[in-house]
Amino acid sequence: MPSQTDKPTNRVVFQPSGRQAEVPHGTTLLDAARAMGVEIEAICNGRQTCGKCQVTVEEGHFPKHAITSAADHLSSPDGREGKYWGTHPQLPGRRLACGCEVQGDLMVFVPEESQARKQVVRKAATERAIVVDPAAKLYYVEIEPPTLEHQLGDWDRLAAELEARFDLSGLRIDPILLGTLQNAVRADDWKVTVTVWQDREVIRVQPGYQEEIYGLAVDIGTTTIAMHLCDLRTGAVLATASRMNPQVAYGEDLMSRISYADNRDDGLATLHGSAINALNELAVEAATDAGTTADAITDIVLVGNSVMHHILLNVPPRELGQAPFGPAVSDAVDIKARDLGLRLAPGAQAHVLPIEAGHVGADNVAVMLAERPDQAPADEIWLIVDVGTNGELLLGNSVHLLSASSPTGPAFEGAQIRHGMRAAPGAIERVRVDPDTLEVNFKVIGRDEWSDAWEQGSSGTEGQETAEERRQRKRKALLGDGPILATGICGSGIIEAIAELFMAGVLTPDGRFAPQVESPRLSWQGAKAEFVLAWPHQTGTGRSIVVTSDDVRAIQLGKAALYSGARLMMERLGVDHVDKVLLAGAFGSYIDSKHAMVLGMIPDAELGKVFTVGNSAGDGARIALLNRAQREEARRLARWVDYVAVALEPRFQDAFVEALPLPHKHDAFPHLAELLDAAAARRKARGVSDMVSARERRLAARRAAGGE
Amino acid sequence: MPSQTDKPTNRVVFQPSGRQAEVPHGTTLLDAARAMGVEIEAICNGRQTCGKCQVTVEEGHFPKHAITSAADHLSSPDGREGKYWGTHPQLPGRRLACGCEVQGDLMVFVPEESQARKQVVRKAATERAIVVDPAAKLYYVEIEPPTLEHQLGDWDRLAAELEARFDLSGLRIDPILLGTLQNAVRADDWKVTVTVWQDREVIRVQPGYQEEIYGLAVDIGTTTIAMHLCDLRTGAVLATASRMNPQVAYGEDLMSRISYADNRDDGLATLHGSAINALNELAVEAATDAGTTADAITDIVLVGNSVMHHILLNVPPRELGQAPFGPAVSDAVDIKARDLGLRLAPGAQAHVLPIEAGHVGADNVAVMLAERPDQAPADEIWLIVDVGTNGELLLGNSVHLLSASSPTGPAFEGAQIRHGMRAAPGAIERVRVDPDTLEVNFKVIGRDEWSDAWEQGSSGTEGQETAEERRQRKRKALLGDGPILATGICGSGIIEAIAELFMAGVLTPDGRFAPQVESPRLSWQGAKAEFVLAWPHQTGTGRSIVVTSDDVRAIQLGKAALYSGARLMMERLGVDHVDKVLLAGAFGSYIDSKHAMVLGMIPDAELGKVFTVGNSAGDGARIALLNRAQREEARRLARWVDYVAVALEPRFQDAFVEALPLPHKHDAFPHLAELLDAAAARRKARGVSDMVSARERRLAARRAAGGE
Repeated sequence: MPSQTDKPTNRVVFQPSGRQAEVPHGTTLLDAARAMGVEIEAICNGRQTCGKCQVTVEEGHFPKHAITSAADHLSSPDGREGKYWGTHPQLPGRRLACGCEVQGDLMVFVPEESQARKQVVRKAATERAIVVDPAAKLYYVEIEPPTLEHQLGDWDRLAAELEARFDLSGLRIDPILLGTLQNAVRADDWKVTVTVWQDREVIRVQPGYQEEIYGLAVDIGTTTIAMHLCDLRTGAVLATASRMNPQVAYGEDLMSRISYADNRDDGLATLHGSAINALNELAVEAATDAGTTADAITDIVLVGNSVMHHILLNVPPRELGQAPFGPAVSDAVDIKARDLGLRLAPGAQAHVLPIEAGHVGADNVAVMLAERPDQAPADEIWLIVDVGTNGELLLGNSVHLLSASSPTGPAFEGAQIRHGMRAAPGAIERVRVDPDTLEVNFKVIGRDEWSDAWEQGSSGTEGQETAEERRQRKRKALLGDGPILATGICGSGIIEAIAELFMAGVLTPDGRFAPQVESPRLSWQGAKAEFVLAWPHQTGTGRSIVVTSDDVRAIQLGKAALYSGARLMMERLGVDHVDKVLLAGAFGSYIDSKHAMVLGMIPDAELGKVFTVGNSAGDGARIALLNRAQREEARRLARWVDYVAVALEPRFQDAFVEALPLPHKHDAFPHLAELLDAAAARRKARGVSDMVSARERRLAARRAAGGE
Repeated sequence: MPSQTDKPTNRVVFQPSGRQAEVPHGTTLLDAARAMGVEIEAICNGRQTCGKCQVTVEEGHFPKHAITSAADHLSSPDGREGKYWGTHPQLPGRRLACGCEVQGDLMVFVPEESQARKQVVRKAATERAIVVDPAAKLYYVEIEPPTLEHQLGDWDRLAAELEARFDLSGLRIDPILLGTLQNAVRADDWKVTVTVWQDREVIRVQPGYQEEIYGLAVDIGTTTIAMHLCDLRTGAVLATASRMNPQVAYGEDLMSRISYADNRDDGLATLHGSAINALNELAVEAATDAGTTADAITDIVLVGNSVMHHILLNVPPRELGQAPFGPAVSDAVDIKARDLGLRLAPGAQAHVLPIEAGHVGADNVAVMLAERPDQAPADEIWLIVDVGTNGELLLGNSVHLLSASSPTGPAFEGAQIRHGMRAAPGAIERVRVDPDTLEVNFKVIGRDEWSDAWEQGSSGTEGQETAEERRQRKRKALLGDGPILATGICGSGIIEAIAELFMAGVLTPDGRFAPQVESPRLSWQGAKAEFVLAWPHQTGTGRSIVVTSDDVRAIQLGKAALYSGARLMMERLGVDHVDKVLLAGAFGSYIDSKHAMVLGMIPDAELGKVFTVGNSAGDGARIALLNRAQREEARRLARWVDYVAVALEPRFQDAFVEALPLPHKHDAFPHLAELLDAAAARRKARGVSDMVSARERRLAARRAAGGE
């Protein structure tokens, strides 16, 4: 600011920050704010174009600051601001900070939407604010047209203007943009809005003043792909889309994907291409949903386990499938989205978060970024279980944090389950079984009321629907007409169903359906049974939705992998309990922590300290999308956390077999004592034996070995 | 170096630099050299692998340095060096600087091939040394394999090793290499040679120790594409390839290319694709010639005029065809070769030199880099004429340098000439006409002896070849059997032919064939004539090769554009003469400067001060390929030189018409007085009139206007 000796000054106070200073009479409010370090958004940087720097004046006497503030202590809004207000509605009292000059003492309020670094709050167990400071940002400039005497290139003049007005020096332009640059700068009279990536490279040029800027945060799971479309200016999630990972067609678990990529000439290309196709389709879906187009998306952050990570980057995953499991790259990768085959904005950047080890990937790094176990107090032990086809675990605190992976299998995502499906409308996500009547009450995704409140069909509850009724109902379901019916069970539904059946005494601790139980819902085929959750009239398919002996077994294998992994990590860390458990995963909606514990997915913990946090990896991807400093934080965390190869330890197999039964011992699960006693009492009342035969144990061990 | 107080030291002198110092006893020679700033090549950086750091010991007493040097003042070659000499032949006295330790005073000689920054000498009028310091360099490393405990990515470990051994920090890897990285590092036991671009990015990874590293320097002319394949380690040109620019099929001059690109949906893609195809084919040709493959090429530098530059970068050239002729980009462009469609090494980089203005391109910048007119003494005026389809001119010196372009037309490159061809084997490149007999003696590219020394066919000189003889000769020519015959005329040939015909009194100053001339070589069709340069038995086609009235006119239009452009630049600079003229261009071999002057291509100058320098733009591209600092120099020069739009000045049309006649006035060409007098005397002896009719002048002006 100019010397204050000759010029009269005025005191200006900015709220809510409370920063204040004497500024020379005639200073614009935007300059005054900047001089005090008050960050006000201004895409056009003081050209009265973007209207983002709106503030209001608080009128009155403020004794604390010894000033009297009044609206007319600013220059008239008909002045430089007139250009903007002439074409935009002016909210009462709103002024453009860049267009009005200080002519007296002022108390100025900067509304949240005008603050430069906005905050978005992530709703989760641990509510966190994300400061919006993305890698891709917008800048509006007006550039000088060339003349016969000054035939400097359009890019060179644009770069000079960006440097002069925004201090962006040494910028380059993605050369692929050069082909459309001349039309873009001429389309709106040499006014353009450019998207700059990492203050380094221009990745999009749009004619005129624009303020739309979008990014994608993507979690590529073995079974499920989830995507958020975010507004990179406000941080808002504008759309969410997800689907089954189409690679499932080439192998359900990671080992079979590695094998498919390795044993076929075009194996990797097929796997890579199918994931990229899905991402392109999801991007169009999300963009349409948000009222924009995929080619307006300039940044994408991707996370996934190591195998998904390698396939995404077109890297053969072979080494990840054999000792010593060395990845091709651990560090974060910046790559042009187009080089991955993604069809976003032509210059769009992709950022892939770092991975930790051959079996602990970028998804786990994203979970760290979202849940910050590295900030857990030194006297607490946190356990984070990311439930997916490849389960990933974090254990520890700010002093020492371990990570590990455990081959869970896809059961928690609804695969390898008779009526399993991913968490989508129609999926049974919650289940209650009356321990006396064994009647079932469930809730499906997309419908608020539980099934016991559903309008009954004309036929009985036993599925005695007439052919005509059934035809009508199916037609309605197909047309999207009428209420949503059950179409399958998602991860959270199967977890609750099995836990409820166990607590009702229908399942034995070793996971068998008790033959002593009598219920129209339970039927047998040889040694195997199935239990009806939804009768045909409650389903969109017209057939019963059941839980089978094999479903229970698949879930047991998965939960044993998680539990035994966590136990071995506890041994390694030298702790005998955990203080807080976070259950993450895209396996469904929020499962009741009680059910997760009753199932034995996690070591014993205080019930009130077990939280489900949803798709934490996707949240971490979103954090890295919205804040570039968090990308560096992710790199640091990936190298700081200690990877433990629990699944390779000789002890793992024993621990795994030991963890197969459902919890029934007080010593291992003291916090569940009451519930386990109740379940035991139900079994006893039904005359069910808790004994597990030696043959069963051997079978379990054999299946466990094959299941990895 | 460690403290020298405790340890005995020895004096080591390095030649030819003469640098010397006391070094601790036991220091390796490589470390000693580095400590003194003596740069010795060492791709493997002291691992006794590359053998590049070979030196010899000079034995004897050197009083000037007060030392006695002896071979056994070095540790035994059986020590660490043994690893290398065991598998490589050891030249007498050669030692590996990295493997032997100083054990006494030494006088060490570093042969040129062991010096780190080699020099290659460019043969031209002004002989210049190019210091070999390319953007792409090789580094050999041995990396740690991963273990179960340390599963860090292969790239991460490679990067750490490159940083530790070569101080290359903050390196990234072209993500496209990640897919082949794991195989590459495992193929030769974790030894790899990487190519690093600009100390910034790994662009190639080869298994084991390698020392082949190649780059291309390319000049894309409107009519001709020329390419050099260079060894980036030694700087040597290993192969040269050229061909007609296939874009010629879509328009011979720049305006028609612009129009083709603009008026067709796929116009730009067609032009771009045809040039890229030609480059890909030339790269394969050059690589094969050099005994390597195109996918071993990691760097390419491209120059061309602004229109070629835009089309190469897939940028619509439309704006270059209309005022104010603003380019899309003036600055140098770094782009992945693959993004241009080039099939070189997958990670190869392309560097496109900057352009100066809408009509003065990167080729002119390359000419500046090769000829350095900006280093001309302040009291000299240099004129550089780059003869191509778009002629480009530089005029001035280190104080003030002007550049301009002039629409020459493709005649100098053999296009728009009846029997024109590019400079390739069979092209008539030199011509002498006996002023008395009008007999012609010529030389073709690819054959040393002039035509008068060629073995005469059985038929007479008048082309009375029998059908059988002709069939036999054509068969031989097709099979490459027998000597090369004439197949056309290249630029230098047409220049010499017309100059010679003028000096022989066959052509009048206004470019007409004089009807008074009698010769079996001259024949008429109406008002137009043609003059036989080569009789059918001297040609590969079996038909005469002639110079026609239209050929002379095309050359006149071209030379008038160059001459008038240069004159207007001289006016602008306020000078009335030039001290030195450099004639550049890919138009053929070195034309005699006398012929160029007699033709009137350039303003009058002292004959001994006119030099032909060949494809200077191609040389400039090679300089930028071999030395990265020169790329920055090119950027500086492009912005420093003053562009003058001479062709747009109203005065240009008059000056152009005035320049159409062949030189015949003493006042304008004092240095040619004697030659012009001789020519005038020949014409007078033949009774030829020098008068040009008013109708001729008008015709000339009309043709000139249409010719632009």
